[in-house]
Amino acid sequence: MDRTRIRRHPERGHYDRETVDQILDEALVCHVGFVADDHPVVIPTIHARVDDVLYLHGSPASRMLRLIGGGAPVCVTATIVDGIVAARSVFHHSLNYRSVVIFGSARLVTVDEERWGAFRAITEHVLPGRWNEARQPNRNEDKGTMIVAVPIDEASAKVRTGPPGDTDDDYELPIWAGVIPLAVTAGVPQADPRLAPRIGIPRSVAGYRQGG
Amino acid sequence: MDRTRIRRHPERGHYDRETVDQILDEALVCHVGFVADDHPVVIPTIHARVDDVLYLHGSPASRMLRLIGGGAPVCVTATIVDGIVAARSVFHHSLNYRSVVIFGSARLVTVDEERWGAFRAITEHVLPGRWNEARQPNRNEDKGTMIVAVPIDEASAKVRTGPPGDTDDDYELPIWAGVIPLAVTAGVPQADPRLAPRIGIPRSVAGYRQGG
Repeated sequence: MDRTRIRRHPERGHYDRETVDQILDEALVCHVGFVADDHPVVIPTIHARVDDVLYLHGSPASRMLRLIGGGAPVCVTATIVDGIVAARSVFHHSLNYRSVVIFGSARLVTVDEERWGAFRAITEHVLPGRWNEARQPNRNEDKGTMIVAVPIDEASAKVRTGPPGDTDDDYELPIWAGVIPLAVTAGVPQADPRLAPRIGIPRSVAGYRQGG
Repeated sequence: MDRTRIRRHPERGHYDRETVDQILDEALVCHVGFVADDHPVVIPTIHARVDDVLYLHGSPASRMLRLIGGGAPVCVTATIVDGIVAARSVFHHSLNYRSVVIFGSARLVTVDEERWGAFRAITEHVLPGRWNEARQPNRNEDKGTMIVAVPIDEASAKVRTGPPGDTDDDYELPIWAGVIPLAVTAGVPQADPRLAPRIGIPRSVAGYRQGG
């Protein structure tokens, strides 16, 4: 559809689901846009993809979830910054990045089986392997969680990679140019001060690395 | 104003400008929300703060900049993820994060002196020290850049820090809980394959670390 077409730098546009899915799966959070009182609102939140659907969750009191769960149009954007692109000219400085924009309408997830799958997917998205280590949701927690599903059918990705692109004349300038790679890295796990004695670091935490 | 009030987890809300400014200055990119054809749109972009103003820039052909430069309401959100919060229960898993949401209307920046200051601020935001190393914008590049200013007067921050908060009964469970700290780190700079000979890595690149 027209609204998913990349207008600026069309050469950076990707419309295949493999590229879209990879970015959605690697990005830890997304930014959800909706309209409230005629004003745009953008809220960061955790997401998880299962096949052709992106799940969002939160409190049933969340204005965002109530609005988009009620059918209000939504835009979900996930962005990963991969590097700083230093050109010879200020003008051609840029970032290497991968982003996905999804347009659509969400639906409220009400069927138990799909809800359970979404709980699990969201947990595993944040910390792979954690679902089977932690205490799974009880009835009250289930009641206290609203889940909405955004279909991934109107989605596009935008990707910039590689060195800077300076104008021809500038390549002669005695100015360094290149890329500073950026990545999210995990530090040493910090145990909860209230951790009971003799509990070792579990596999999900020991093996965590961002991006899968 | 009411729309900046943190509704969910009000204890995480901060309204002081110092907290807001620190997050805006550290976040490398922001997500800009606007309404186009009655649909919310969220686009990632580079920003820079100068005093009470957040500058955004891009091509004069950018739909986003044309709309918000023309006075359409805008929401700018910047998010930094600081860690994964692993609780004993799936339900209390969370992220440590710092985010800012700004509501308002942008204005087009047209005065040369303010435009030049914005160019400089945006360059220095991405790579501190780079403005004086690189070739500064020429007349064509100046013409080819649209700059808008979003006032930072309706802004709020939301911050989660610290260990998980499990329900009382769960602290007895033999399940590890704690935080995996996350940070953006810079890798070894990659020189442009077209770099002219005998150009060393400059101070801005050698000294870069994310978050200033």
